Amino acid sequence: MLQTEIIFTGDELLFGEVLNTHAQYLGQELSALGIESLLHTTVGDNFKMLKTVLLNSIKRSDLILITGGLGPTTDDLTKETVADLLNLDLIIDEQIFHALGYGCGQRGLTMTDSIKKQALVPHGALVLPNPVGTAPGILIQKNGKIIILLPGPPRELKAVFEGSVKKYLESFADRGLVMSSRVLKLTGISESQVQDKLDGIEGRGNPTISYVAMPGEVHVRITARATSKKKAQEIVDDLYIRVKQALENYIFSTDDEVLKEIVGALMIEQGKTISLAESCTGGQIMKILSDVPGSSRYLVGGVVAYSNEVKINLLGVPREIIDRYGAVSEQTARLMATGIRKITGSSLGIGITGIAGPGGGTLEKPLGLLFIALADKEKTICRVYHFSGQRAGVRSGATNASLKMLRLFLLQN
Amino acid sequence: MLQTEIIFTGDELLFGEVLNTHAQYLGQELSALGIESLLHTTVGDNFKMLKTVLLNSIKRSDLILITGGLGPTTDDLTKETVADLLNLDLIIDEQIFHALGYGCGQRGLTMTDSIKKQALVPHGALVLPNPVGTAPGILIQKNGKIIILLPGPPRELKAVFEGSVKKYLESFADRGLVMSSRVLKLTGISESQVQDKLDGIEGRGNPTISYVAMPGEVHVRITARATSKKKAQEIVDDLYIRVKQALENYIFSTDDEVLKEIVGALMIEQGKTISLAESCTGGQIMKILSDVPGSSRYLVGGVVAYSNEVKINLLGVPREIIDRYGAVSEQTARLMATGIRKITGSSLGIGITGIAGPGGGTLEKPLGLLFIALADKEKTICRVYHFSGQRAGVRSGATNASLKMLRLFLLQN
Repeated sequence: MLQTEIIFTGDELLFGEVLNTHAQYLGQELSALGIESLLHTTVGDNFKMLKTVLLNSIKRSDLILITGGLGPTTDDLTKETVADLLNLDLIIDEQIFHALGYGCGQRGLTMTDSIKKQALVPHGALVLPNPVGTAPGILIQKNGKIIILLPGPPRELKAVFEGSVKKYLESFADRGLVMSSRVLKLTGISESQVQDKLDGIEGRGNPTISYVAMPGEVHVRITARATSKKKAQEIVDDLYIRVKQALENYIFSTDDEVLKEIVGALMIEQGKTISLAESCTGGQIMKILSDVPGSSRYLVGGVVAYSNEVKINLLGVPREIIDRYGAVSEQTARLMATGIRKITGSSLGIGITGIAGPGGGTLEKPLGLLFIALADKEKTICRVYHFSGQRAGVRSGATNASLKMLRLFLLQN
Repeated sequence: MLQTEIIFTGDELLFGEVLNTHAQYLGQELSALGIESLLHTTVGDNFKMLKTVLLNSIKRSDLILITGGLGPTTDDLTKETVADLLNLDLIIDEQIFHALGYGCGQRGLTMTDSIKKQALVPHGALVLPNPVGTAPGILIQKNGKIIILLPGPPRELKAVFEGSVKKYLESFADRGLVMSSRVLKLTGISESQVQDKLDGIEGRGNPTISYVAMPGEVHVRITARATSKKKAQEIVDDLYIRVKQALENYIFSTDDEVLKEIVGALMIEQGKTISLAESCTGGQIMKILSDVPGSSRYLVGGVVAYSNEVKINLLGVPREIIDRYGAVSEQTARLMATGIRKITGSSLGIGITGIAGPGGGTLEKPLGLLFIALADKEKTICRVYHFSGQRAGVRSGATNASLKMLRLFLLQN
């Protein structure tokens, strides 16, 4: 196995000023390539500490990815540190230098020393093009070790990784041991209940079962290592089938499915449009649907109806229904769904009402109670959910459940 | 200075299955206490590797926080590893054991071995109560080193940290060197432009200036170390004033302000209510406003008007206006704001229309063009923005700008 580590640089990460999304992105990308990370280390803008960390990594591992510290500012130290440690000179790369000059001209800027600094490259290194930013990535091979420097801004890191690193690493994917893994995402069951349901299924060693509990969700991951990607996949699949059987009723999604994108593709495929009437979710489901580029083709829009007045005046829910059954009721959810569908002229309408908390729960209608209704021209279906956890958990549970319900509806209708 | 490190455990972090939000939360909390982290390390559910990492940390640092691996499943190894490394026995804590038994009884569960495992505590350790979960935190003091184990689920980690760890660490805050820092958040300026504007202002050493570029934002952080929190703050403040002057026009927020909460508090204080009509932001701003518990007191609701039909039929924007000026225009934004205000009866209305991309831009109306209008009973104001970057960047820029505009309006009206 290609022993692999990732080093993230930047005071902003240690201070918690910025969420480290690189760890997730690179973790997923490397896993998909069958490359397993041994360690992630985050170090500040600190020449000495970065050098210590890098030295340990080089001793231990074959492939080291380093993010950040390639930019124009004085706290950008990564190239300097790597060059110093490996005894390489930093030299101006003419091509980058000219691209920087061109970029400055385009934007009417003067080429300053801080901009020029981005054209420095360790002697003998490969330059990895950055199509969306100024600082390119850098690949160094020395003494059998591979060191890859990636720019810090997430969009640039992604562009460099997609553009050249991925392809480069693919050539290692079948060298030595490789890894494969699959994930089952469950809802409506606790972590220890999952563990007990899997009692008797071996999950330490190879293959391994690991667990993550999140608000309203438990993830079960099965991982195996073998001498080829194919063999590793076979080991995983074998255990996956047994785990899936044991947990069938609780699965809402698997692997790296992105529900909002799957639902979007189905909507386009079927030529349908949708509108939403959201109460306690406050626009969250519309926000998530509209994250997907091109979503304006099927997402017509909708209403956030926090107050009863909006439910009555905008959505046309009769006041008597709210008075009689309550704003959080199956009746109200159904009328919200049919109401928004009618007003916007979309083919589908969703109505959501519930109690997200922290206040508002009663014995009869507890915190976490949620109704989701889905209407098309012919019919309206409604499901009731009881989510545990706090406000954010109830709201993200509601989002998962709505997308799951919509997907199922699109597949069956 | 209390040399400090954080170790995060869990395969799910190395695989990128879960975003490491602990790094941000603990980074912020420790910074606020004047405690600086030297290193963050993420290690999988791997007894041997965790032991190696922990051994290095103990050699180097005085305070070590470890997250995760305290739960009921077989991949939870943290207590076992720490106890092994420090030669401590794991013994059943009677109080935790009884609490677990009570919890099982309440939920009609049988007390299994996997649940029971959570009552194991290294001999001589302090138990840190977990009011929102089953696995408590653990504090070990040995050979002058402090090791604190925190549960992995974010809500539980936070509860244990807030409940006991924070208070415990406060007693160290004035021992040796402590750190202080402040942040300025800028928009409408690039990282290298910031650097050039600060040319001549010393920012390496003590105090230090560091930079982070994000979509539509650049953060500038000033950090100082001194023998007391007060002294460190004075050094920071001195440089902060000069940096602030140099960058005055670009600042939209400072330090750990949470704009959505500040705006919410102002709304409640002034007894105002608000509704929104969002086009390209797709409900994102309502979603963010409704994240705040109690937001139903001022957020009446609103409309997501992706399509022109919704703008016309639900918001009452005249078709002629859209035909003449376009859906993305100051005229449409103003009518969206006044329209939603009128329909919902709220005291304030916001209308947002723009081009978030990826498609839809023209030479005259480029990608990133955005109009935000804000109406009360007497008047409507409108601002135009030009955001750079991709869809997510434009949308988060729009959110920042809307909240900033709303705050300013509430303070001035």
